[in-house]
Amino acid sequence: MSAVATVAKGSPLAIICGSGSLPFAVADAATNSGRSVILFAIRGAADAERVAKYPHKWGSVGQFGRLQRMLNDAGCRDVVFIGGLVRPALWQLRLDFKTLTLLPRLAAAFRGGDNHLLSGVGDIFERNGFHLLGAHEVAPEILVPEGPLGKTKPSERDREDIETGLGYLRAAGPYDVGQAVVVSGRHVLAVEAVEGTDRMLARVAELRAAGRIPSAAGTGVLVKAPKPEQDRRFDLPSIGPQTVASVVKAGLAGLAIIAGETIVADPAEVAAAADRADIFVVGMKPGTTR
Amino acid sequence: MSAVATVAKGSPLAIICGSGSLPFAVADAATNSGRSVILFAIRGAADAERVAKYPHKWGSVGQFGRLQRMLNDAGCRDVVFIGGLVRPALWQLRLDFKTLTLLPRLAAAFRGGDNHLLSGVGDIFERNGFHLLGAHEVAPEILVPEGPLGKTKPSERDREDIETGLGYLRAAGPYDVGQAVVVSGRHVLAVEAVEGTDRMLARVAELRAAGRIPSAAGTGVLVKAPKPEQDRRFDLPSIGPQTVASVVKAGLAGLAIIAGETIVADPAEVAAAADRADIFVVGMKPGTTR
Repeated sequence: MSAVATVAKGSPLAIICGSGSLPFAVADAATNSGRSVILFAIRGAADAERVAKYPHKWGSVGQFGRLQRMLNDAGCRDVVFIGGLVRPALWQLRLDFKTLTLLPRLAAAFRGGDNHLLSGVGDIFERNGFHLLGAHEVAPEILVPEGPLGKTKPSERDREDIETGLGYLRAAGPYDVGQAVVVSGRHVLAVEAVEGTDRMLARVAELRAAGRIPSAAGTGVLVKAPKPEQDRRFDLPSIGPQTVASVVKAGLAGLAIIAGETIVADPAEVAAAADRADIFVVGMKPGTTR
Repeated sequence: MSAVATVAKGSPLAIICGSGSLPFAVADAATNSGRSVILFAIRGAADAERVAKYPHKWGSVGQFGRLQRMLNDAGCRDVVFIGGLVRPALWQLRLDFKTLTLLPRLAAAFRGGDNHLLSGVGDIFERNGFHLLGAHEVAPEILVPEGPLGKTKPSERDREDIETGLGYLRAAGPYDVGQAVVVSGRHVLAVEAVEGTDRMLARVAELRAAGRIPSAAGTGVLVKAPKPEQDRRFDLPSIGPQTVASVVKAGLAGLAIIAGETIVADPAEVAAAADRADIFVVGMKPGTTR
């Protein structure tokens, strides 16, 4: 145990809070396990109405100095990043002085793709005496378990598509592309990069409507997995009811994620939505491909 | 020389003609080299107005028996496939009898992604006594030469992006994904799969307009290369003035293709459009990455 971790015991957990419902799932899970939490909500990203129900402070991206002061004032050492955050252009930020002094290292992190950026930001927090935790470490119950989440199971054909998808993601991993791919009949239909999973699935839905997808509706799989080099403290893949809705609109048979390495917002609702649409949502054992 | 190739000498070249202007560039090049041509235009794909200026016949996808009769009637042995063709769903086809007898092999080809499909179709032509040629074999002057096509050259930063893009395409090659990728600051911004190059570039333009691209406008490269396993008789990557326009709209610095393995429609207009927009269009030596 490091000195930081010892100090952190009993201190409130800081949740740096982006968009979506995951920050609140993490906050609730940590609270249920007996830990107090403070949300540091990111302006323009976090859901203000829901933030208001928790102890919270507001801040902007690029104001590391201000954030550091707020964290110290609140006595926080353990920090979790969670929720969506569109990576802003550097010149769109109103940087505070502390952030300016960090700029050379941030700029280097920015050049190398998402993994490098996030690891770079993580290092900066650690060097400033904070302890950066993954959401899965403070709220393990938000992780996808192994096996199907609802009643539907992947078919043999679906398992072949999952295998192809995981193989592709592994091969593309060193290039720090997206975390997700759509495969049907072992044929890669779409690859996620900067646009994100929902926009990629919307593209598949459009291509299908335009007759550009050769396989029948109700076949094909969304496969989502962490990048091999990904800093799991930041950016585990996540799914929620919205993902199920997008998979249904794209006309796919289901979706596969990695058990223990994927966050699920609202698992009961995900399972219910999958059952209503008769699609599968399956947590794959890490290291397997089928 | 096979018997087929001997018979083919002096017989008209059959150009199976999809969408876009490439079929006409090939037809003109073959005609200029002293060979007679007949266009077999694909209904719903080929440009009817331009087809009308050449000796031609119309046919539909899935009517292999009819095509075979037309080719034999015209005394054609050498066949070139060229131009865009959206892969149709099997059930959208009105298949003739000959095609029905080929269905088991076509269905097997359909399952394995584009490369397998095209190689499968190629084998069927060869087994039926035709000689399938690549467009580059009958019209080598339509291939991109080495070096910049216009006045602008890639910068050192652009060359790093080209290296990353070619590396990515090589890594993803076994998965038979698309032929193109957009890279900026060594970060993969978009990957082409079923949607095609123009739609991928439109996506980059939209993401940039939405502030989702962290690098400045005027940086980043479209990199396009044949898939490693690709049957080059069918589906060499191609660029034209439209590609340059899409690269400009996406706010990129330029585009890189492989010399001798990429077809360029209207090279003079491509160079002029690149010069007007001050972007580079560079033919990379095959096997190099920078």
